[in-house]
Amino acid sequence: MRFSNATLPDGSRCDIEVEGGRISAFLPTSPSTPDAVDLGGTIVLPPLVDGHIHLDKTLLGLPWVPNQSAGNQVSDRIEAERRVRAARMVPEFETGSNLVRQVVASGTLHMRTHVDIDNQLGLRNLHEVLKIREHFRDLVTIEIVAFPQSGILRSPGTAALLDEAITQGADLVGGLDPVGIDGDLDAHLDAVFGIAQRHSAGVDIHLHDGGEGGLAQIMAIAARTEALGLQGKVAVSHAFALGSVPTDSATRAADTLARAGVAIMSHGPGGATIPPLKLLREHGVEVFGGSDNIRDAWSPFGSGDMLERAMLIGYRANFRHDAELALALDMVTAAGARVLGLADYGIKAGGPADFVTVEATTLAEAVATRKRRSLVVKAGRIVARDGTLV
Amino acid sequence: MRFSNATLPDGSRCDIEVEGGRISAFLPTSPSTPDAVDLGGTIVLPPLVDGHIHLDKTLLGLPWVPNQSAGNQVSDRIEAERRVRAARMVPEFETGSNLVRQVVASGTLHMRTHVDIDNQLGLRNLHEVLKIREHFRDLVTIEIVAFPQSGILRSPGTAALLDEAITQGADLVGGLDPVGIDGDLDAHLDAVFGIAQRHSAGVDIHLHDGGEGGLAQIMAIAARTEALGLQGKVAVSHAFALGSVPTDSATRAADTLARAGVAIMSHGPGGATIPPLKLLREHGVEVFGGSDNIRDAWSPFGSGDMLERAMLIGYRANFRHDAELALALDMVTAAGARVLGLADYGIKAGGPADFVTVEATTLAEAVATRKRRSLVVKAGRIVARDGTLV
Repeated sequence: MRFSNATLPDGSRCDIEVEGGRISAFLPTSPSTPDAVDLGGTIVLPPLVDGHIHLDKTLLGLPWVPNQSAGNQVSDRIEAERRVRAARMVPEFETGSNLVRQVVASGTLHMRTHVDIDNQLGLRNLHEVLKIREHFRDLVTIEIVAFPQSGILRSPGTAALLDEAITQGADLVGGLDPVGIDGDLDAHLDAVFGIAQRHSAGVDIHLHDGGEGGLAQIMAIAARTEALGLQGKVAVSHAFALGSVPTDSATRAADTLARAGVAIMSHGPGGATIPPLKLLREHGVEVFGGSDNIRDAWSPFGSGDMLERAMLIGYRANFRHDAELALALDMVTAAGARVLGLADYGIKAGGPADFVTVEATTLAEAVATRKRRSLVVKAGRIVARDGTLV
Repeated sequence: MRFSNATLPDGSRCDIEVEGGRISAFLPTSPSTPDAVDLGGTIVLPPLVDGHIHLDKTLLGLPWVPNQSAGNQVSDRIEAERRVRAARMVPEFETGSNLVRQVVASGTLHMRTHVDIDNQLGLRNLHEVLKIREHFRDLVTIEIVAFPQSGILRSPGTAALLDEAITQGADLVGGLDPVGIDGDLDAHLDAVFGIAQRHSAGVDIHLHDGGEGGLAQIMAIAARTEALGLQGKVAVSHAFALGSVPTDSATRAADTLARAGVAIMSHGPGGATIPPLKLLREHGVEVFGGSDNIRDAWSPFGSGDMLERAMLIGYRANFRHDAELALALDMVTAAGARVLGLADYGIKAGGPADFVTVEATTLAEAVATRKRRSLVVKAGRIVARDGTLV
């Protein structure tokens, strides 16, 4: 099977030959190949990677649910979500599946989802998301983080549930503002890293706490990571603190994070400070992107389109040059793939015939204009066309 | 002519009867009206209003032009734009027309555009934009601000050009960072307000300068406005300073701005502080929205879609509740219309049959999901369908 008239990310034109679901060769463009799918010169991107999504939170497909948070603190939103969850009549399998379909249509073929676990929910949401993963296994890879949305100490019994979640199929242990939510840095990290060690699992901790207090928690996570030899298996999500401390503090932190192999996830926050992405990358820190909330009890916004997310990250980071937009795109493609440990990723001869096409002439233009994806191809098969699943 | 099965902004269902380009009546929905245009329950919004666009800057329709700014200062970007402008081979009439077509297809029927004027450009860009205004006069209203993009004092001769621009058809006098660019607050405002007074024209000043220094300039603009009796005819665009000073300073400023009748335009800046929109509105200040740069020498981003802009404003302002999203929408509809002085605006019996339909059940949902506009109607005539001009 041949996809003709592709523009590769480096700007070159070629035909892409596919055999057995893999890219067998890049060939000179030929105007007269019968049965080829003509890409018409659209740019070919590797699959988009959503490094931080919440498949169990979204209300996508339900009638509009107004935000019910009484205040602007993380704790207010946790309470509001309890009320929304108690009122919802549709299982998370359905709404989460709506979201998977929407993101695949926009070119995302790999994602890391956090799944809420606390002493009221137990492992219910995990079971829903495990069903989603199984249901869409031929379409997307889904990595699952067991996420203590209500805290670990504040919600007694949660540590054991997180441990059990890993046993039942979650891939990583999550955490949440050890100081801001649980009020005990060491006890929170003892629980998280203890479970990670027992299961040889990775770690991905939500860290909203800002300023030097937030930074101290990030540094404690880096220290634990190094001490336990977990380099490359730990991420801090959000890490707003890195964007709210002076540049010299952020620079020292970057060096520590790079040495510890701790990655930083940013969704390009609208109402909080954004980590200094270029500084982090220049100092060797892996930075990657994710959607975070998509039409749920936390936020009315979000679409799951990772090109739009790259735009939002770039917009918030004040990126304007092509190389900066390419960094934003890297965060939602190759860097995300590295963090998720995807060995079989990327547009290359012998690689999987997984790619996304979008009408643009450069990577920067693809991020800036975010046109509807003309094709999404998985293992050589067209799975979406013009933004709609086929 | 009848548009059936409309959902009005208050959530009610009705048919909209149109005669002579105006809404003659709202009628109970009737399933069997022949020749009616069935809106299928989509929500009907008044026309979107772009309160700040740069029709002469956009490069829309040209091959991708990478950003060439050497630094992150306003002065760096002014220099970069000179280079981009010197190299462009297509007249501003064409690229600006591309933009008008794109924004009309997304539901914008009214806009205020700034037009660059300095001692190198002269009135060339004004003439291009006057041609655009004439060309699209049956489709959109275009208000023109004579904008001294290179400063007034820094670009000798510009004051006279601004004055001449008003004579030739511009509607308002612009200004630009009286301190940050021109280094002389009083001399800059003398020029701007002098021209405004001579022509009884409005004023709209770009103010990027932050902190207390920026705030002092905003207060000076308010003082001039009150002294000259120009209440309701003056706007400050961007006003990043209002978002970077302590809340009590911003509150005092809000009271002063409200008394002076000075409006504040925000585009929901990505890389700068956003004015406290709710605080300003609560204190009686008119706040409205605009696109600012759209794929030009300043920014690779921007689409001209004012529902997307309302989302960006809401995202940056940390809006989440329905009432907050309604404020963001108001900024790009009714508030924009008030600032632009549009007397004939709004969905009401006897009003113009100008409206936009979008698949959503509430205003908040329309902002959050920003679906493609199903219809754009101008004077009872369908001018765009599913995001494409007809």
